[in-house]
Amino acid sequence: MMLVMSATRSGVTVRSIQEITIFTVGALSFQDLPFHVTPVSEEEHELNNRVPSRPTPELKFELDDEGDTLSNHNSITALLSSKFRDIQKRLKQYGIESPRFRKRLVSKWESLNYDVCENVLYIKEQEKYKSKKWVTLRWLSKWLVMFSIGIMTALLAATIHFVVEKLAHLKFDLIKHYFDDCAKNNCLYQPALMWMGINLVITVAGAALVTFLQPMAAGSGIPYIKSYLNGVKIPGLLTFRAFVAKTLGVVMSILGGLACGKEGPMAHSGSIIAAGLGRGRINFCNGKSISFYSAFRNDHEIRDFMAGGAASGVSSAFGAPIGGTLFSLEEAASFWNQDLTWRVFFSSMVACFATNFLISAINGDPTKLTDPGLVRFNAFKFDLKFDLIEIPVFIFMAVIGGLSGALFVVMNYKLTVFRKRYLNKNWIKIIEAGLVAMVSAAVAFGLMVGINDCTDKAPFDSHAVTAAVYCTDKKHNSLSTLFLTTPEGCLKALLHDPFESHGPVSLVAFVLIFFLLGVWTYGLSVSSGVFIPSLAIGAAWGRLVGIGVAHLMPENPNLGVNSSLIKQLDVGKFALIGAACQLGGILRTTISLTVIIVECTDDISFGLPIMIVLMISKWVGDFITTGLYDMNVEVMGIPTLPFECPPLCDDLRASDVMSHPLATFKTKEKVENIYRMLKEETFCGFPVIEDDPMAPGKGKLKGLILRNQLLVLLKKKIFCPEGQVPPRNITIKDFRDFYPVYLKVSEIDLSDEEKSYVMDLKPYYNPSPYTVEQKFSLPRVFNLFRGLGLRHLIVTDEKNMPMGMVTRKDLAKFRVGSKRGLVKIEQLKIEDK
Amino acid sequence: MMLVMSATRSGVTVRSIQEITIFTVGALSFQDLPFHVTPVSEEEHELNNRVPSRPTPELKFELDDEGDTLSNHNSITALLSSKFRDIQKRLKQYGIESPRFRKRLVSKWESLNYDVCENVLYIKEQEKYKSKKWVTLRWLSKWLVMFSIGIMTALLAATIHFVVEKLAHLKFDLIKHYFDDCAKNNCLYQPALMWMGINLVITVAGAALVTFLQPMAAGSGIPYIKSYLNGVKIPGLLTFRAFVAKTLGVVMSILGGLACGKEGPMAHSGSIIAAGLGRGRINFCNGKSISFYSAFRNDHEIRDFMAGGAASGVSSAFGAPIGGTLFSLEEAASFWNQDLTWRVFFSSMVACFATNFLISAINGDPTKLTDPGLVRFNAFKFDLKFDLIEIPVFIFMAVIGGLSGALFVVMNYKLTVFRKRYLNKNWIKIIEAGLVAMVSAAVAFGLMVGINDCTDKAPFDSHAVTAAVYCTDKKHNSLSTLFLTTPEGCLKALLHDPFESHGPVSLVAFVLIFFLLGVWTYGLSVSSGVFIPSLAIGAAWGRLVGIGVAHLMPENPNLGVNSSLIKQLDVGKFALIGAACQLGGILRTTISLTVIIVECTDDISFGLPIMIVLMISKWVGDFITTGLYDMNVEVMGIPTLPFECPPLCDDLRASDVMSHPLATFKTKEKVENIYRMLKEETFCGFPVIEDDPMAPGKGKLKGLILRNQLLVLLKKKIFCPEGQVPPRNITIKDFRDFYPVYLKVSEIDLSDEEKSYVMDLKPYYNPSPYTVEQKFSLPRVFNLFRGLGLRHLIVTDEKNMPMGMVTRKDLAKFRVGSKRGLVKIEQLKIEDK
Repeated sequence: MMLVMSATRSGVTVRSIQEITIFTVGALSFQDLPFHVTPVSEEEHELNNRVPSRPTPELKFELDDEGDTLSNHNSITALLSSKFRDIQKRLKQYGIESPRFRKRLVSKWESLNYDVCENVLYIKEQEKYKSKKWVTLRWLSKWLVMFSIGIMTALLAATIHFVVEKLAHLKFDLIKHYFDDCAKNNCLYQPALMWMGINLVITVAGAALVTFLQPMAAGSGIPYIKSYLNGVKIPGLLTFRAFVAKTLGVVMSILGGLACGKEGPMAHSGSIIAAGLGRGRINFCNGKSISFYSAFRNDHEIRDFMAGGAASGVSSAFGAPIGGTLFSLEEAASFWNQDLTWRVFFSSMVACFATNFLISAINGDPTKLTDPGLVRFNAFKFDLKFDLIEIPVFIFMAVIGGLSGALFVVMNYKLTVFRKRYLNKNWIKIIEAGLVAMVSAAVAFGLMVGINDCTDKAPFDSHAVTAAVYCTDKKHNSLSTLFLTTPEGCLKALLHDPFESHGPVSLVAFVLIFFLLGVWTYGLSVSSGVFIPSLAIGAAWGRLVGIGVAHLMPENPNLGVNSSLIKQLDVGKFALIGAACQLGGILRTTISLTVIIVECTDDISFGLPIMIVLMISKWVGDFITTGLYDMNVEVMGIPTLPFECPPLCDDLRASDVMSHPLATFKTKEKVENIYRMLKEETFCGFPVIEDDPMAPGKGKLKGLILRNQLLVLLKKKIFCPEGQVPPRNITIKDFRDFYPVYLKVSEIDLSDEEKSYVMDLKPYYNPSPYTVEQKFSLPRVFNLFRGLGLRHLIVTDEKNMPMGMVTRKDLAKFRVGSKRGLVKIEQLKIEDK
Repeated sequence: MMLVMSATRSGVTVRSIQEITIFTVGALSFQDLPFHVTPVSEEEHELNNRVPSRPTPELKFELDDEGDTLSNHNSITALLSSKFRDIQKRLKQYGIESPRFRKRLVSKWESLNYDVCENVLYIKEQEKYKSKKWVTLRWLSKWLVMFSIGIMTALLAATIHFVVEKLAHLKFDLIKHYFDDCAKNNCLYQPALMWMGINLVITVAGAALVTFLQPMAAGSGIPYIKSYLNGVKIPGLLTFRAFVAKTLGVVMSILGGLACGKEGPMAHSGSIIAAGLGRGRINFCNGKSISFYSAFRNDHEIRDFMAGGAASGVSSAFGAPIGGTLFSLEEAASFWNQDLTWRVFFSSMVACFATNFLISAINGDPTKLTDPGLVRFNAFKFDLKFDLIEIPVFIFMAVIGGLSGALFVVMNYKLTVFRKRYLNKNWIKIIEAGLVAMVSAAVAFGLMVGINDCTDKAPFDSHAVTAAVYCTDKKHNSLSTLFLTTPEGCLKALLHDPFESHGPVSLVAFVLIFFLLGVWTYGLSVSSGVFIPSLAIGAAWGRLVGIGVAHLMPENPNLGVNSSLIKQLDVGKFALIGAACQLGGILRTTISLTVIIVECTDDISFGLPIMIVLMISKWVGDFITTGLYDMNVEVMGIPTLPFECPPLCDDLRASDVMSHPLATFKTKEKVENIYRMLKEETFCGFPVIEDDPMAPGKGKLKGLILRNQLLVLLKKKIFCPEGQVPPRNITIKDFRDFYPVYLKVSEIDLSDEEKSYVMDLKPYYNPSPYTVEQKFSLPRVFNLFRGLGLRHLIVTDEKNMPMGMVTRKDLAKFRVGSKRGLVKIEQLKIEDK
């Protein structure tokens, strides 16, 4: 007898001995396989001979001991399994399985469920919405929620701004006081210890808050937000705990003297506000919750609101309503629609306006409206104009930015891997954060004392804390204006301080130190953003370039550049370009980031050079490595889907990529089977098939039911003894009440009698799940999946019988490697951790 | 015997008498039907009893004369047809069929074909692209094409700018000369006649060019471009003829003195350039063509390039690279991907930069780089700052803008309908254009002479032509600075001229006249944009509001507004807000338009009030009518798809909306059948079914073949006598050579012998077309169609047999009416003209 089989990731199973069972070899390139591969009969597998040159995915084995083996299912399985091990070994030999840290996906990440389950309950509920009153009401309430999101995000932004500014000023005033006193009295160890002590205490508190309350609140949250908008469920991301840890944490991180900003976390905070308002419920830490309304409790609506929240957060942080809107929409591009865009833009604008109002009020006059965001680069004394001759300089800077950005990413990647392997205990994380805070203070102290760069130029910000240290004659220590302030204040000083404020030596030292601190800080278990440190690093070396240009072209009016002019007005321009280059090199700018920076600069005519350098720094950086956020996503193994199917995948079929075998249910299923299946399998969706007594387990596809639905049905005991009429006292609201934290199997308690009952799944399953035929090519499957934001895509055979399931991870594992500018396809491993 | 039947648009057909045939009643709401409706057997039509309360779409008829009727297929059809006529009559009684001009789709508009046909030829070609070299080359060439698009668009923009500016200055200088001479010598009829004469001649030439060369070049082209990006094929839109008519036409329209701008047409011109470069071929008017390369000749790639072209056009016109990018992407939202966005942005940036360079060069110094677009609003003497107290005034202006914009749209709609009904001859169109040009001159002349508003304030533009007419003492006629210039110059004068330049009487007269001229001009058979006239109207009444505010609050420092301050610096601000309001009211701003205006203003901090007024004017306008472009699209009956399925459609199924019966082919089909079918039917896609001898015409779905493919196959004679091996000497390039202008059936010439041959469709059809089961709900079908940009979606029964086809028009006919802010669903008619 001829058996056709193959190996998948999960092993080999034989469903039925009577028929020739076909399995496929994962989604490897079959040319690489060390076997002789022969096509099976032509009629049976038409897909294989469409291109005669293409080898088939099946492996044929001749079974010697026919009669004996056939009669025994187990022995066949054993035989195949041994063959399978053999295959696996050979695969390893061929280097196809080469586990690397970034080349994997983690199985715990699930898709969001954007697809509407159109079962009877849903259709019944929709009947209610048929009236114009309801349609209008829903429309209005969506706008209202968006408005509230904008207002609350602005309130949060203004509060954080106020608290950080006041407390930071207090802290640095105190340190400066000791500094200036002790420089005379030779007791400089006092400010040093005090600085390190303050940093240590506050940072440890912040790190502990994040680590124990909600580790998801670490970092800027933007990689998570982007993944969520891409369609991945991130448990814990949008909870009240995360909100507390994020907002309090970011205040502590900045007061703790870490090289981080409060802008990135605003996007996350805004998203949490949006999710909370959208769900109409707050789950407190103690398990209690307040519930307002439940109409928008599904992934689809929450994602829409969250887009508004993320946009509002970015808009509040940078005063960039357009940039914020684009930020939200570019990841979720396949779900764009004009209506949603308009709402997101609205909330973004409300947030910007309210932030402007509130911060202007904090600064004294609410009607002035000059601070639409937490950070702005618009206080240039002269108009930002650029000359054509400066463009080559800018391009050169962009190349530097791309290279140093890539270096930042690579170093941070190594550190992240190291942290994941060795620093994965909670207490170690907290200690590390404290250490970084102390080192930050110590290094800043050392530089200020060691370099002693004195200047008499008044800093741009009249409220800035300046320490004299060893300087005399009313001069002050130039580095003190950079270190005795928040990273944001430091950035502003670098952009706007007059030409002679900062000497080249100070700047070089600052760049090196801040670069290293930035690398070390990003990825700590504290709430922190990477925007501001990136910009500050870039602004510092941009200033250096500006100084260099000023010296290289002393007085050459022919070139159109006049150095005395540069001295007066242009060094801030170079700092700005440097900041943009560095940010572009680290984060790999997208169109949204470009718009954000242009909006921050408040000058569109200068937008053109900014766009050019951002593009070039991205290209240069991409040539070496991925961006920081993408690197984060990769290390966490989150299965985000790119916008298009990777090239070179045309010869893969749905049957090659699908997960199988499937667990299926009949339309009327025994409670015992359901319970057992939920316990044993980790699948989140189960195809429901026709109950065909002639061919058990081989019925036509009837629909798809989700694990969450089954759990609710079991919990609510919607079943009855066979032959009786099943109870139907359940509404769609009962399902919604469990959103978004669903039940676990362990919470289900069933008696033995109940287990013998039957559950009628018909009213609950989704009767029209999206399906594809097994011959569908991977690019088509991909487009379908991505375009519609699916979670499950059932693969059927020609007779409409489910054969397997394509989920996000099956598609996300195909990646284009863009190493050194060349394109190649690679397959990621799927691991449990 | 019980027969289940229903009426569709196309009539009633009976496929088989043996089974109970099911037809559905179009997609009407069945509650409205005047029949008694009963469900058929439960098992047969499970979908109907999923919600027991929902009435079924089938109509039951008891046939009296059972035996006789059943034996005769024709008599049944006749019987049903009579019933069908009866139903149609009753439908009319119920007002369901109420033909209105805007409530229809025109059947000639087809979908673009974004879906890749994965047949053997395609897969063979893809093999070639497997190498890294090819992937990199394709990638590079895409960027290169985008770069060229940007450069060429900028070249075009600069050329148009140069020609228009020079010639317009000549023309108006001449008129001014006669004006000033004749005011003294009492011969004012001379300049009047001369002005009217010049306008008449030039405009008639422009109108003739557009009307005879390519009528698609009329108007701004933006409604067409938006429809194309939405996925509708617009024949003739992207041709060389259209390019010539558009670019020469717009120069003539402006020189001809029409109230129109050259900015809108830039988007169209840019798109044509992009399509030409993308196709690598120019088809000249005489039927000849130059071909460079064919790799990108499919709708998918061309659409991508065209997005870049449209963006470049907008970017060149307004100096708005971000706005241009958004313009392209917001219509095509479901096809976004970051890679494409980045390329579009690149070409848009290149266009902006090159335009800047070229126009700066025309103005004297190419390194100055101060003119990134054809029109800019950034020459305000003082910083554009706004006070909180001004916001209510702005909101009031936004309401005016929304109302007057809606009035503009309504009036233009009435005019368009009138034109379509009565002015549809070519010579009438040309005469009308000439008439408008003469009236424009006459009215301007009348106002200048009649109002005689003299001012001594020098106009903002030192090169502006000013006529004295009756003014003395070195004063000049205030209206002459508005009328003796291009509409663009007029807009600039209104925005930037000093406070006392234009008196209230002149402004009121100007607003009224320019509003009416704007309404009359838009829709003429000339190449013309509506941006600039809209902005000019708004700027004029915005200036009026500014003057009003200045007089209402004479000297009240408590309110924070100081009228002398307003007089000095703020009237331009009000003009700008007025311009934004009017544009928003007419076009109904989307996010892209907002960004365009903000970029044009060159001041982001003033972006916030602009965004607010644009939003409010849109809301106010939407409450009354749709925007101008949408109105255009509706009147032309173009089936654009909205972003989401209209609400209230959940109870419609795929089987309710699909077109049927289908024309199908077997995998091996007789040439005669194919030829006949192509001749008789208008379908563009044909399902290919299994050749099942047991049940002819009822086989399983095998694939989908397009009309265009069949025509090429017939033309190339890819068929052979039955039993022989078919020739396969055809490559995918043979199909591409006919892109985008495909063959017609009349071009096929077949002998009788050839007609008896057999064509093997297997290597050519798309083996995995997207399908849905008939039970799929309309929202799901819609999402699938919109999300993937489909052209054909095959509806199958449970056994995978094709039952019908859903095309764009089947979905686009469902519209939400947003009249007076209330939502309701309406169904458009599909007509041939």
